[in-house]
Amino acid sequence: MSNSYCVATYRCHDEKADFAKKAQGIAVGLTVGSWTDLPETKKAEMQRHLGQVVDVKVHEPAPGAPASERYADISIAYPDANFSRDIPALLVTVFGKLSMDGKVKLIDLSFSEDFLSAFPGPKFGMQGVRELLGVHDRPLLMSIFKSVIGHDLDTLREQFYLQAAGGVDLIKDDEILFENPLTPIEKRVEACLQAAAQAEQKTGQKLLYATNLTGPTFGLLDQARKAVATGANALLFNVLAYGFDVLSELSRHPEINVPIMAHPAMAGAYYPSPHYGIAANVLLGKLMRLSGADLVLFPSPYGSVVMPREENMAIKEVLLTERASDYIYSRDGRPQGALPLKTSFPVPSAGIHPGLVPLILKDFGEQVIVNAGGGIHGHPMGTIAGGQAFRQAIAACQAGQSLRAYAENHPELKAAIDAWGIRE
Amino acid sequence: MSNSYCVATYRCHDEKADFAKKAQGIAVGLTVGSWTDLPETKKAEMQRHLGQVVDVKVHEPAPGAPASERYADISIAYPDANFSRDIPALLVTVFGKLSMDGKVKLIDLSFSEDFLSAFPGPKFGMQGVRELLGVHDRPLLMSIFKSVIGHDLDTLREQFYLQAAGGVDLIKDDEILFENPLTPIEKRVEACLQAAAQAEQKTGQKLLYATNLTGPTFGLLDQARKAVATGANALLFNVLAYGFDVLSELSRHPEINVPIMAHPAMAGAYYPSPHYGIAANVLLGKLMRLSGADLVLFPSPYGSVVMPREENMAIKEVLLTERASDYIYSRDGRPQGALPLKTSFPVPSAGIHPGLVPLILKDFGEQVIVNAGGGIHGHPMGTIAGGQAFRQAIAACQAGQSLRAYAENHPELKAAIDAWGIRE
Repeated sequence: MSNSYCVATYRCHDEKADFAKKAQGIAVGLTVGSWTDLPETKKAEMQRHLGQVVDVKVHEPAPGAPASERYADISIAYPDANFSRDIPALLVTVFGKLSMDGKVKLIDLSFSEDFLSAFPGPKFGMQGVRELLGVHDRPLLMSIFKSVIGHDLDTLREQFYLQAAGGVDLIKDDEILFENPLTPIEKRVEACLQAAAQAEQKTGQKLLYATNLTGPTFGLLDQARKAVATGANALLFNVLAYGFDVLSELSRHPEINVPIMAHPAMAGAYYPSPHYGIAANVLLGKLMRLSGADLVLFPSPYGSVVMPREENMAIKEVLLTERASDYIYSRDGRPQGALPLKTSFPVPSAGIHPGLVPLILKDFGEQVIVNAGGGIHGHPMGTIAGGQAFRQAIAACQAGQSLRAYAENHPELKAAIDAWGIRE
Repeated sequence: MSNSYCVATYRCHDEKADFAKKAQGIAVGLTVGSWTDLPETKKAEMQRHLGQVVDVKVHEPAPGAPASERYADISIAYPDANFSRDIPALLVTVFGKLSMDGKVKLIDLSFSEDFLSAFPGPKFGMQGVRELLGVHDRPLLMSIFKSVIGHDLDTLREQFYLQAAGGVDLIKDDEILFENPLTPIEKRVEACLQAAAQAEQKTGQKLLYATNLTGPTFGLLDQARKAVATGANALLFNVLAYGFDVLSELSRHPEINVPIMAHPAMAGAYYPSPHYGIAANVLLGKLMRLSGADLVLFPSPYGSVVMPREENMAIKEVLLTERASDYIYSRDGRPQGALPLKTSFPVPSAGIHPGLVPLILKDFGEQVIVNAGGGIHGHPMGTIAGGQAFRQAIAACQAGQSLRAYAENHPELKAAIDAWGIRE
């Protein structure tokens, strides 16, 4: 039986390293430890544990560019036999010690079919979220509470109603809302779902409320169960503050039968450096989907907290791809067929206003959640109008009309454009 | 009653930002959300949730230096009222969204007395580890298995014995050893403790074996209990692959009555960039101690995987300090008295050989664990001699003798120096 491998790709910056030698050093050093001094009899036995260099692409600096721009993209295959079927084991194997060894950034991961098969992936996924909401023919709209810290249940309920009444599909807690005496999770879910029911009478529309799951790690399962028992129909989770494995365990748990929305809090500690850390498509893309995130938030390239567009597109690609070959490494060639994981809904976020909707839909297509905070609450005609303006912007794009033309008969959209403009 | 605060300090690089304004934006944006548009009556109520700018130190680039070197160190006080008493809540509050907002690195954290009081800290600490070993008068010596993946229990037992017989005080698993059919945790603990007992008959010396705690997060407590029940007298833990909170919960658990050794795997994804991430003294220093690590490994400035010396000294300082003022922020001035947390043993690691011992002891004093892998197993006279050479190097330094002079009567040390040299 042929061995199976997970493959990590690193971008290594070094002005003069022998990258081929470096790659060999990684392949041996992070697996069997040493090779050349093993007795031949032992080598046969250890072969199945030995890492393999898959690829070394050296990028010499352009003429005139500084030597510091010299780098190589190195791909190493790690035998599945070396680690257990969990993300901490994989990450510690491929980037535990190595992360500290010079300028090295983890830029891609591919998994063996065997490793991948240990992960059920998103329980709902994009399609499942659409089914819960009964909306299949347009991008979804999400909004975020304006401010929550220090506010009581009545204020929360009111904020929630105003957002919901404008026609948003999902509302999420602020990620910095933790257990507190004013709005503890059970009361919060109760109050918000009351407001949702009230708004539904006006809009005729279903809504998901993602309540923030927080507190000590070993208590999260109970906390989630409690929220779900109170009626919570989605959860928000600060994945990177807890580790991918916790998301993975929550999402596969049979009692957590609601979609989980992954928040990118802390992600900026990893992805923005060109020299260190973990690239956004791995951190907020592949690992989130593998761990079972039904929806993934990340900074958009458009708004206030920005991520370069190509990184956004790379995240989108890995959240939505159906191609097995994008995730699975096989020594026998690119695997055919569909990826066995459900897709995760991409949610580009931060500083979004209705005038950005055409750009978002151009980049993401219809399989996207338009997510706004200030762009809804800060609308000149109020929060309800804020939601309506976004829905109008989405409808305009779907009808193939310009926002400006559509706004002529839609005062909410017109007011939004007057306030924030249009970027195309 | 005056409010209490935790304080985060950031290094923000920006060529032209108004840093005072940026600081205000953080203080408001990451707490109450907005301030100037709140009604006056509401302001009184919200004041206790409002972040405060503690300090803004702008560093203009030196004449002739590029504008990209312009930065400010900004300290913001976050009201305790805003977050629960756990590290994920604190980190998400102070560096969740902000981590993604431009060039910003978290370079320090101070805690309120109230926040700190929720953390018992290391159960054993440096002193407790010394008591378990009965060694109070010298730096300790630790060794790491040479290679473990693909090896069986007999090989492990033999490797263990050879390390122990040379006089090392602690032996740790390789951090990439996960649950596997050849050396599952219970069998491994059993085999290694047998070897330890055998070596003790020769050396008369006690020994701690830190076995690697791995697997799914929600199963770690059971896994740890199992190891402890089998006789494990220490645990190794890849903290950053699981999150600080898991360490915090494990270390405070009454049944986990053995020291926990924190491994820095993945740390390089955070600390090396000057612009992004979390500084080593926070990541591998304050947060590890707060979470209850009894021993903390980190790359030394001497060996193969290096960290700048000043960062090492900063880690040492925060692991070993007794001063409350180094950890606690108080609006009423620097708090007096001793920090209520036990100290954590610093373990500078990677590429250490006996010729580096004088440097290590000069930098760290006696409160350090000298940790070696190849410097023990690769000794020309074998693994036992490798341990002995280190013990001799430590003895030489304590006797105030040069390694070279001491080596005249100590062939093991002499062979080590001949092989690897001395750095002073």
